[in-house]
Amino acid sequence: MPPFPRQMKLGVSMIGLGYHVAAWRHPDVPADGSPNIAHSVHVAQTAERGKLDMVFLADAVGVREYDEPPGALCRFSNSSRFEPLTLLSALSMVTQRIGLVATLSTTYSEPFHVARQFASLDHLSGGRAGWNVVTSVTPMEAQNFHYETTPDYDKRYGRAAEFVEVVRGLWDCWDDDALVRDKASGVFFDPAKMRVLNHKGEYFSVRGPINIPRTPQGYPVIVQAGASEQGQELCAATADVAFSAAASLANAQKYYASLKGRMAKYGRPTSHLHVMPGIMAVVGRSEQEAQDKYGQLQDLIDPKVGLAQLAASLGDLSAYDLDGPVPEDKINPRMRSRAALMLDMARRNNFTIRQLYLAVAAGNGHRVAVGTPQQVADGMQEWFENEAADGFNYVPAALPGGIVDFVDLVVPELQRRGLFRTEYEGKTLRENLGVPFPLNRNAARTMEKAV
Amino acid sequence: MPPFPRQMKLGVSMIGLGYHVAAWRHPDVPADGSPNIAHSVHVAQTAERGKLDMVFLADAVGVREYDEPPGALCRFSNSSRFEPLTLLSALSMVTQRIGLVATLSTTYSEPFHVARQFASLDHLSGGRAGWNVVTSVTPMEAQNFHYETTPDYDKRYGRAAEFVEVVRGLWDCWDDDALVRDKASGVFFDPAKMRVLNHKGEYFSVRGPINIPRTPQGYPVIVQAGASEQGQELCAATADVAFSAAASLANAQKYYASLKGRMAKYGRPTSHLHVMPGIMAVVGRSEQEAQDKYGQLQDLIDPKVGLAQLAASLGDLSAYDLDGPVPEDKINPRMRSRAALMLDMARRNNFTIRQLYLAVAAGNGHRVAVGTPQQVADGMQEWFENEAADGFNYVPAALPGGIVDFVDLVVPELQRRGLFRTEYEGKTLRENLGVPFPLNRNAARTMEKAV
Repeated sequence: MPPFPRQMKLGVSMIGLGYHVAAWRHPDVPADGSPNIAHSVHVAQTAERGKLDMVFLADAVGVREYDEPPGALCRFSNSSRFEPLTLLSALSMVTQRIGLVATLSTTYSEPFHVARQFASLDHLSGGRAGWNVVTSVTPMEAQNFHYETTPDYDKRYGRAAEFVEVVRGLWDCWDDDALVRDKASGVFFDPAKMRVLNHKGEYFSVRGPINIPRTPQGYPVIVQAGASEQGQELCAATADVAFSAAASLANAQKYYASLKGRMAKYGRPTSHLHVMPGIMAVVGRSEQEAQDKYGQLQDLIDPKVGLAQLAASLGDLSAYDLDGPVPEDKINPRMRSRAALMLDMARRNNFTIRQLYLAVAAGNGHRVAVGTPQQVADGMQEWFENEAADGFNYVPAALPGGIVDFVDLVVPELQRRGLFRTEYEGKTLRENLGVPFPLNRNAARTMEKAV
Repeated sequence: MPPFPRQMKLGVSMIGLGYHVAAWRHPDVPADGSPNIAHSVHVAQTAERGKLDMVFLADAVGVREYDEPPGALCRFSNSSRFEPLTLLSALSMVTQRIGLVATLSTTYSEPFHVARQFASLDHLSGGRAGWNVVTSVTPMEAQNFHYETTPDYDKRYGRAAEFVEVVRGLWDCWDDDALVRDKASGVFFDPAKMRVLNHKGEYFSVRGPINIPRTPQGYPVIVQAGASEQGQELCAATADVAFSAAASLANAQKYYASLKGRMAKYGRPTSHLHVMPGIMAVVGRSEQEAQDKYGQLQDLIDPKVGLAQLAASLGDLSAYDLDGPVPEDKINPRMRSRAALMLDMARRNNFTIRQLYLAVAAGNGHRVAVGTPQQVADGMQEWFENEAADGFNYVPAALPGGIVDFVDLVVPELQRRGLFRTEYEGKTLRENLGVPFPLNRNAARTMEKAV
């Protein structure tokens, strides 16, 4: 028997060439690996070899960065990536058990299309699809969809909440046993089991039904990263997984308690929502090897790229001395909560501008663990056993090395401690996550009537 | 040397369980084959074994039929299907050479999303993506996207034309050699080779750039089925392939001449657009076997389904005697051009209502060929050699049998006659179709300046 019957859930963020801004420059990283299907297949199959719950694709609907300071934009590799749903559909054919989770923003999309795409992926993959529900915040993305700038916070979240409601309604349009396919009588589906949605809300009017049957998972797994009040409410009400970002145990615990505390009013047991903070781990067989790996990546950060990482929140600081203090009094913060976080970090550590961007560039708000497999596992175990995490979304610094190291070094250590599975428990992502199959609302209603 | 150096292009429509309305009831058809990835893989791999240029997925953004007459809708199988882009992405992993063409309507979608999805599929498949550009016409679909009914014809076509323009602009945002990925200098892309689109038109404002590099084909292949004046103009201006529907040689020739005649004013040689009419072929080793196969399918058409096929154009005729005349004077046509076509067909053949729906249900406006491989090939050759077709979009009556028969019986006959390839000429769909790689408009402009 493992010492801890409760086990971690693990995902890996597999976007592009890694999460570290300078990853693509690393000698071991294939700079032409994005978009490159062979690279993506290697990453996903390695993650599946490690029995991870899911691969996860972040997304942006456009080139998200402004060229600030000038000459920075062309030093980023993330303007070159697959569209997530198409990539995951392809990966569904070369993997058998791992979950396939794509980010798709609610801000500029249509619920009918989104419901179809994820339902289709769920059918393709035999029940392994997941949707990371986000809203889009950058003006660059807004301008690809007829807007000058982003809709305000309330509109974005109001739309997101209604969007999820409509999508789940569409996924319920067909009862699980609606398709009778009776060749003799010529009846393909039981008309009483096809439901017209007829949704009319503030943001959407959607009649339905969707033109694909209910999916193997009932609903594809819903992932969210709700950080704000409204985001946390939506997450507590509807999500199976929460991807959070927390750099310290205390912050992670606070978020964990806050999120789980909101679930009771939606009639949901806390075990039905897995909180999975991001963790960037750089692993070495010795501590020195890990530090060297990490240092090599950090050394590859061009100052322009470092300053660009700060610019989104703090504006362009390229006029200041990189090795001087962060000029707090001169800063006009753009994204308030994030700017406050950065300035607080600078103050606490007495960081220069360069030190600040190096710290930010590394994990981009996520926890960074650099060390041996034992050290990394220790850190994960601490959070897992202290109500800070039900698992982790591993964000590899560089790919494919980052996932190979994690699977070959960290996963076996977690398995030895009984903290992680040695074989998939089920066939669908829901089964592996241990979250319930959602009963179709319409079938449920019919059953009530019958009783 | 084959007698005809010019060879046919061939596609196969692989939606669901076949094109015939009663296909799913046929004993050889797996009624649970849609959505079912194993079924789709079998069909696509068979088509590739036959060296076909492409598989093609029709689409609808919703359940398109009304339940008229009552009890008809539940007898159709086409409410249950994969979303095309996800399915083709999956198929890109289990096929090597065949083109992957998906229908995606411009009426309720965003050019930015569509450009990304097809670019992503083109990268995934190594240059085998194609986009069948359509507009959506049924009120049922409109109601899934906030409208009571379909936008009028001019708006739909205006939007479609601008949509294609924006998508092609987004595909050109990155020069073919923009991504330098220079690890030493830290420059990932040449900023002079990333172009902001800044499109501002009547229907769309789209800044760009897209966040995926230019694709292996430059542009995924553009397919259209322009039948109307505006449709034909758009097709002549932008399409690489035209999927048409013509039941007679004369009509096919008229369309062929009309379409090709419009190309000169867009500066395009007529060889750059392949006209590929639909053909439903039911093939048997003897004529009797073919007729029996066809008869078996026709016998499986429930009268409700037959009447529903007429209802979309002519309204519900279920109050009339099925074996009596078509009550022309009592009909209030819904889709005028289609209703006229049907009434003309009834008049010319002196059809009863039943005979009319049987004739319509079979090919749904496409040519129907029932016979031996030689007879089917004769029919195709006649059109091919008489300026009615550059190839065909084969619409199998039932799947998978329809594609297996076509590949095993008709393709070898066409090959023997030198009318069809015995091996793929190239790696990309454009190479196999023999249509040019589109020069990036921005790179072209830069070269002009340099000269």
